[in-house]
Amino acid sequence: MASVARVTTITSRSEQSFEDAIRQGVQRVNETLRGVEGAWVKDQVVNIADGAITSWQVTLEVTFVLDGAHGDASSD
Amino acid sequence: MASVARVTTITSRSEQSFEDAIRQGVQRVNETLRGVEGAWVKDQVVNIADGAITSWQVTLEVTFVLDGAHGDASSD
Amino acid sequence: MASVARVTTITSRSEQSFEDAIRQGVQRVNETLRGVEGAWVKDQVVNIADGAITSWQVTLEVTFVLDGAHGDASSD
Amino acid sequence: MASVARVTTITSRSEQSFEDAIRQGVQRVNETLRGVEGAWVKDQVVNIADGAITSWQVTLEVTFVLDGAHGDASSD
Amino acid sequence: MASVARVTTITSRSEQSFEDAIRQGVQRVNETLRGVEGAWVKDQVVNIADGAITSWQVTLEVTFVLDGAHGDASSD
Amino acid sequence: MASVARVTTITSRSEQSFEDAIRQGVQRVNETLRGVEGAWVKDQVVNIADGAITSWQVTLEVTFVLDGAHGDASSD
Amino acid sequence: MASVARVTTITSRSEQSFEDAIRQGVQRVNETLRGVEGAWVKDQVVNIADGAITSWQVTLEVTFVLDGAHGDASSD
Amino acid sequence: MASVARVTTITSRSEQSFEDAIRQGVQRVNETLRGVEGAWVKDQVVNIADGAITSWQVTLEVTFVLDGAHGDASSD
Amino acid sequence: MASVARVTTITSRSEQSFEDAIRQGVQRVNETLRGVEGAWVKDQVVNIADGAITSWQVTLEVTFVLDGAHGDASSD
Amino acid sequence: MASVARVTTITSRSEQSFEDAIRQGVQRVNETLRGVEGAWVKDQVVNIADGAITSWQVTLEVTFVLDGAHGDASSD
Amino acid sequence: MASVARVTTITSRSEQSFEDAIRQGVQRVNETLRGVEGAWVKDQVVNIADGAITSWQVTLEVTFVLDGAHGDASSD
Amino acid sequence: MASVARVTTITSRSEQSFEDAIRQGVQRVNETLRGVEGAWVKDQVVNIADGAITSWQVTLEVTFVLDGAHGDASSD
Repeated sequence: MASVARVTTITSRSEQSFEDAIRQGVQRVNETLRGVEGAWVKDQVVNIADGAITSWQVTLEVTFVLDGAHGDASSD
Repeated sequence: MASVARVTTITSRSEQSFEDAIRQGVQRVNETLRGVEGAWVKDQVVNIADGAITSWQVTLEVTFVLDGAHGDASSD
Repeated sequence: MASVARVTTITSRSEQSFEDAIRQGVQRVNETLRGVEGAWVKDQVVNIADGAITSWQVTLEVTFVLDGAHGDASSD
Repeated sequence: MASVARVTTITSRSEQSFEDAIRQGVQRVNETLRGVEGAWVKDQVVNIADGAITSWQVTLEVTFVLDGAHGDASSD
Repeated sequence: MASVARVTTITSRSEQSFEDAIRQGVQRVNETLRGVEGAWVKDQVVNIADGAITSWQVTLEVTFVLDGAHGDASSD
Repeated sequence: MASVARVTTITSRSEQSFEDAIRQGVQRVNETLRGVEGAWVKDQVVNIADGAITSWQVTLEVTFVLDGAHGDASSD
Repeated sequence: MASVARVTTITSRSEQSFEDAIRQGVQRVNETLRGVEGAWVKDQVVNIADGAITSWQVTLEVTFVLDGAHGDASSD
Repeated sequence: MASVARVTTITSRSEQSFEDAIRQGVQRVNETLRGVEGAWVKDQVVNIADGAITSWQVTLEVTFVLDGAHGDASSD
Repeated sequence: MASVARVTTITSRSEQSFEDAIRQGVQRVNETLRGVEGAWVKDQVVNIADGAITSWQVTLEVTFVLDGAHGDASSD
Repeated sequence: MASVARVTTITSRSEQSFEDAIRQGVQRVNETLRGVEGAWVKDQVVNIADGAITSWQVTLEVTFVLDGAHGDASSD
Repeated sequence: MASVARVTTITSRSEQSFEDAIRQGVQRVNETLRGVEGAWVKDQVVNIADGAITSWQVTLEVTFVLDGAHGDASSD
Repeated sequence: MASVARVTTITSRSEQSFEDAIRQGVQRVNETLRGVEGAWVKDQVVNIADGAITSWQVTLEVTFVLDGAHGDASSD
């Protein structure tokens, strides 16, 4: 019974848009974690140089289910 | 004199983007409420399944004017 | 037994003062809701034009009791 | 497609416990609203008289789905 | 000298009560982490279907000591 | 006219449950203060040792009325 | 050297206005505490009965200096 | 097109009342800034000496429009 | 050594999208300030008229470096 | 069994540093209260005159145990 | 009568310590602003490279008095 | 391209000072994590026994870059 989940925080940065940053962050997390269920957008920031926006950056709180069969509570 | 307004909270979900979710939520609210003036984006969340984003979800605090002639303070 | 209450949010605007705005908001809510018990002042704003304050505006969280005999949980 | 939901705030009071107050609040809301999906416990308070706890009171933010076929965005 | 600790966030869900959800979450964390010292209840939510509460869910911030001899700062 | 009240903060710990901790905290406060009217649950924490919950701890903001005849504004 | 101050929280209620409630709360505190320096308005609430405002209530965080010669850190 | 506005923070103090402090703060800001549109009351404090309120002080977040023709983004 | 930076708050409004509002706000700030390094999205609001979104508005906290050679700490 | 504790708020000011202010505040509190267990640094402020820092000021939330044998719940 | 003050936000960075960063930030502000009265420490951050702390950074909200004779409400 | 970072929370305790606690916490994290970039000081607490400060404790939110070549999103 998958009743326990973990929440982990990441930041992700894109040259395109906030939504691209979210997509890339979610994709990166999926490479190493199973059972990712959702992400809350905690912060949105733009980085600027020479008067132009150089990147769109988000902080995400990602939730993923811990399955009972594996000991990955120790993984984040 | 329309000096009193109501604030109501909704969540809206789109398969496209946060802005599409906002547009759909505003449209849905306009079907039943008159005098909608604005909405504050309180939260942004993405839902994820099998490693892909399945929906973009926003929580909105919607403000709409109560006109004096009608008793719709009881409507939300 | 009146043990369940509703909380609804309004904004109210007066040309006189914050307290007049609160009085007018409470009066407007009483026209359509029974059992209003109290209001919390969540925010206070002044609107300004040509260097003068044109209105005093408050956001109120209004609490009113739901009586058991009526189905007005659906009213707000 | 049920992609828009409403969030409404109630307070509920029980002589037994916080969990009984939550159960009673959820039950009361279900009498007049369809599609209730969940509730977030925003606050917990105990009322006291003559040195004894007389009631356990919770504030809940209740979410319920608006179905497309009905105009109940105006209901709360 | 055990002077550095980690804080990790989990959610846990029970069909019984919030306290059962806390107990199950603590038990699950103890399967993979040593040195768990405490947990702060960050949020409490009930999930509802067909008018009944189906689960009691808590979000916990769990603190556990990092012992000097092991490199488990990389475990969460 | 009892129109002024004091608010004081306590923490209380029980081996049983959060509600037992609240009951014990309220009882302890009543030993030395008259006119206690209510308490807001500000925080809930569990302490853990050897993988088991050893105590349930709450932080309470307790309100009590100051009666006009006594100078106990100086007591807390 | 008066370098340590205490902060205590009170609520005060007036039938007239928020400012009258503040004045009465400050006056009541001055009866039992010396060295009161200021108060921050933490919350403003109106109580309502039969559609009319019955009282204006404020929560104040009051700061008062502890003088070195007296042991009134134990007074609040 | 005046689509960009600035937000600046001031504190203002009056011997009379909070509303007089707001009026004086708004008037002072209007002496040097054009296009002031509104102000949010962020904090309210009273200063006290010898048991009496000596001043009513507010912190305001003032919004004013930046017009395209002038370089006053550099002014605050 | 550019070790001191300023933070200023603006709001920016676009008829297109939040990201266009951010781009326009950043561009407007760059006309009068040198050394802009980044911006945090503090709030997102949509304005609505006749049932349609008329503008997408953001509040930004903009950070820009103060260089040692110039006295522009007085500019904002 | 020392299971109930009190939390009280103080401010403390030093001409040297924040840490000296904390040390002095803790020392002052220990003169009149037994059982002090810890303090949370809630705020840090510097006071400035003629371009120089004149004092370092902290606000502390101090926790101290109430022992069962004494009636000092009334002391703060 | 100097009853109106301005609040401005800066960040300051030092290779030594947080307190050195505060001192440098205050000194830098005093070069261009008169009447600086105090600063609130809003945030504290350390920057790290190759496993070592490279700088201690603070965000300060600085308050300075606006004197009546000058038009420097436009300066920040 | 290292565009995704992780944020993890630790507490660290020193007998000397807050800054020593920060240094020790950063050093401990660097033993097991590569790419640590910064840390935000979330909380500062002192522990007290027999009237003396026994330790200075900080809570830090530590950010470290995830490099593309390794699967250490699972490490924390």
